Amino acid sequence: MDLNADLGESFGSWTMGDDARMFQLVTSANVACGFHAGDPVTMLDSCRAAYELDVTVGAHVGYRDLAGFGRRSLDTSFDELFGDVLYQLGALDGVAHAVGASVDYVKPHGALYNRLVHDAEQASAVVAAVNAYDPGLPILGLPGSELLKQAQDAGHPVFVEAFVDRAYRADGTLVPRSEEGAVLHDVDAIVERAVRLATKGEVVATDGTVVQVRPDSLCIHGDTPGAVEMAAGVRAGLEAAGVSLESFA
Amino acid sequence: MDLNADLGESFGSWTMGDDARMFQLVTSANVACGFHAGDPVTMLDSCRAAYELDVTVGAHVGYRDLAGFGRRSLDTSFDELFGDVLYQLGALDGVAHAVGASVDYVKPHGALYNRLVHDAEQASAVVAAVNAYDPGLPILGLPGSELLKQAQDAGHPVFVEAFVDRAYRADGTLVPRSEEGAVLHDVDAIVERAVRLATKGEVVATDGTVVQVRPDSLCIHGDTPGAVEMAAGVRAGLEAAGVSLESFA
Amino acid sequence: MDLNADLGESFGSWTMGDDARMFQLVTSANVACGFHAGDPVTMLDSCRAAYELDVTVGAHVGYRDLAGFGRRSLDTSFDELFGDVLYQLGALDGVAHAVGASVDYVKPHGALYNRLVHDAEQASAVVAAVNAYDPGLPILGLPGSELLKQAQDAGHPVFVEAFVDRAYRADGTLVPRSEEGAVLHDVDAIVERAVRLATKGEVVATDGTVVQVRPDSLCIHGDTPGAVEMAAGVRAGLEAAGVSLESFA
Amino acid sequence: MDLNADLGESFGSWTMGDDARMFQLVTSANVACGFHAGDPVTMLDSCRAAYELDVTVGAHVGYRDLAGFGRRSLDTSFDELFGDVLYQLGALDGVAHAVGASVDYVKPHGALYNRLVHDAEQASAVVAAVNAYDPGLPILGLPGSELLKQAQDAGHPVFVEAFVDRAYRADGTLVPRSEEGAVLHDVDAIVERAVRLATKGEVVATDGTVVQVRPDSLCIHGDTPGAVEMAAGVRAGLEAAGVSLESFA
Repeated sequence: MDLNADLGESFGSWTMGDDARMFQLVTSANVACGFHAGDPVTMLDSCRAAYELDVTVGAHVGYRDLAGFGRRSLDTSFDELFGDVLYQLGALDGVAHAVGASVDYVKPHGALYNRLVHDAEQASAVVAAVNAYDPGLPILGLPGSELLKQAQDAGHPVFVEAFVDRAYRADGTLVPRSEEGAVLHDVDAIVERAVRLATKGEVVATDGTVVQVRPDSLCIHGDTPGAVEMAAGVRAGLEAAGVSLESFA
Repeated sequence: MDLNADLGESFGSWTMGDDARMFQLVTSANVACGFHAGDPVTMLDSCRAAYELDVTVGAHVGYRDLAGFGRRSLDTSFDELFGDVLYQLGALDGVAHAVGASVDYVKPHGALYNRLVHDAEQASAVVAAVNAYDPGLPILGLPGSELLKQAQDAGHPVFVEAFVDRAYRADGTLVPRSEEGAVLHDVDAIVERAVRLATKGEVVATDGTVVQVRPDSLCIHGDTPGAVEMAAGVRAGLEAAGVSLESFA
Repeated sequence: MDLNADLGESFGSWTMGDDARMFQLVTSANVACGFHAGDPVTMLDSCRAAYELDVTVGAHVGYRDLAGFGRRSLDTSFDELFGDVLYQLGALDGVAHAVGASVDYVKPHGALYNRLVHDAEQASAVVAAVNAYDPGLPILGLPGSELLKQAQDAGHPVFVEAFVDRAYRADGTLVPRSEEGAVLHDVDAIVERAVRLATKGEVVATDGTVVQVRPDSLCIHGDTPGAVEMAAGVRAGLEAAGVSLESFA
Repeated sequence: MDLNADLGESFGSWTMGDDARMFQLVTSANVACGFHAGDPVTMLDSCRAAYELDVTVGAHVGYRDLAGFGRRSLDTSFDELFGDVLYQLGALDGVAHAVGASVDYVKPHGALYNRLVHDAEQASAVVAAVNAYDPGLPILGLPGSELLKQAQDAGHPVFVEAFVDRAYRADGTLVPRSEEGAVLHDVDAIVERAVRLATKGEVVATDGTVVQVRPDSLCIHGDTPGAVEMAAGVRAGLEAAGVSLESFA
């Protein structure tokens, strides 16, 4: 099983999260590409850390919105989004290449990630961009999302992730953050959930239904207080359960 | 002989220069990479035009300064500039790749270009970045500049350019723009200068001395009023003189 | 009657529109405040021109989106938009003040303008910001928009504008730009429309209905090809019809 | 005696320093204005905190360089810097005004602060901008700097600061950060120095010379590890020595 987290989200003099420790816990790093976070020096540092620790680098492409950290939905045109994704992909690849690493998958960030669940036009722009860049470059995303459906239709390799600290509904969708209980905080419960997702591919929904998710990767948060403890707990729990950790890519 | 010009310098809703016509006149295009000019859509358009018209694409890397168009000297550290150059190179290459083109040389822009004439530390950062990206990627610059000296010492391929509309001193340096007569405006004189540079590799300095320059490329301006006329005149003059036009790269 | 146009939309080395001539034709200038366009030097130049030509300065506040020129809808929070509007208002006022001018009204720009027609939360943020800045500072907008309704409910002075080159529906709303015939291009028709709006407060809708609009200001475009000719025609037509031109503010 | 610190230096999702505690320790806050740090929401929060805790707000104007946090020297023209200072001053004033506060002094930030020690042209632009904004608005700076000299010559009110954790030379200048021992880390030594500066206006230079500084304000750092402890120590030390703490402005 793969463990992915959003890393490399510092910018200039501002730091975000404890990347030094997180890079030792994950198997895949979604590295910010400069549009919502991540200056070139941070990108270099992230790619170096990934290379040294044998962590797979993914391009964490986002909207051009430093002030909003890419968490605000933006009405881009197809052409703009197509160009923005190519630009970010190439930039991270250029930086990665210089330190011996490479970009081995793509995962959209924040508001773009959420928008690509339903927005067919923006999804088509992202799929077209990744496909134009490299038709074999995997896309990691939400099962059932417009993004993954279009990518699959285009014959593009896709992988699905599950969230170890999010409540699920019986239909397999996430409980929105605006609702109570949407986010789990108890580390034991999170570890238990991670192990069940990794070993059985299933998760228990809020109504008790057992939902088949079959994730290729488990997403853990990298920038919240307690992120390192949760990641360490999940990793230890998975290892104790005999789950071998390695990137999907 | 190669004719290069700064193109792809629009940004979002703002346009700069008449790229549609300039791409038909040059053999090499220094394409802005987003830091001083050039959004991803403009970069895509530039790479498409270059590909269709068989124009060589160069990465026109600059300081991160949209408000100053990269024309203001900036005290970057080695690490920052190393990262900024890799980022821009990769970004343009990613965009170019998507339309069948590629980045075939690097030329610094504006204040960075001028600073690299003398600034050893910034020059070393640029050389290290281009070298880390691709040790065979040519650098185009000013003869005698710190940039080209360091690149050459590193065994990196370098090419030198001359300016068809700038006054030269007897030692081969340019008359600073702050001095009167630094920039030529008469198209006939410019064309004559271009032909002599292309056929004999020499230019007449302000004191009448004949200076050996032996340029690999002639730089013409892309964004001034009259740029298209001057470029068309230079191209016609060179062709009339039997000079074959093709990229150095 | 007032004639307003979007001016001061240059940025750094990029110019937009022919402000030198437009400032001589309008009575109110919607001056960009740096978030979608307008660097401080451009803002200074615009305020100086306005001061010298007795043109009223309005703050043309927009989304923080230089790459999209403020034409892309953005999901800002109340707090972000409240802060962004205050920031832009204060910035333009500071610049205006230094050259003897002042900001005498507010008009949202582009995607923000369009969104405030229906988005109650964003409208409330803009009204709250302008009100906190100065409860007597007029807001110029679209009749019937959420923005003007909320401003009016808050006891804030509001003024309405009509568009001389846009097709109207029988209910007084604009034909969306995506539909054919949404934008008028014939100068004579535009001038005739401007005169009828100014003298009778009415406009003929696409189905022939005569709609009462009663505008305080007529909006003319400043940045399209032919903008100066259209503005000059409208101004001449209004003067010929005996309409006195002065700012609403 | 006044205690000033750089606050409000967060940006979007990135935080810098522990402003909540620092605002309780200082009497003057140099608040970032958006060019090197400080988004509008952070500026609002800072102005609210200052207003509630009776802390004086100063405009901490800097170069337009988020990526470099305003710590990289930039070759701006007079007009650009004049406009940039006015823009930032007005923006912070607009935000401050909305929460009942006001901007009561100006202090340049980072590389701009350092450059204004010697650069006559940039100093003249800053003085001209502050003077155009409000001829009575105090400027806080380094004694003997070009900035303060020009401001004084222009009849502009100036105030001088001393640094409680920096080594001084016998001529009253600071030991450059590049030299060993330039920055003091021992809290007791720093407190002792602060008390002597506040009560006797003097500081002991590295060679033992007693230098007369007579500061109007003591600058303490807000964003380094241990900043809160140092500020609390200095404040307690000054109070124990009977020094009354209040803003110079």
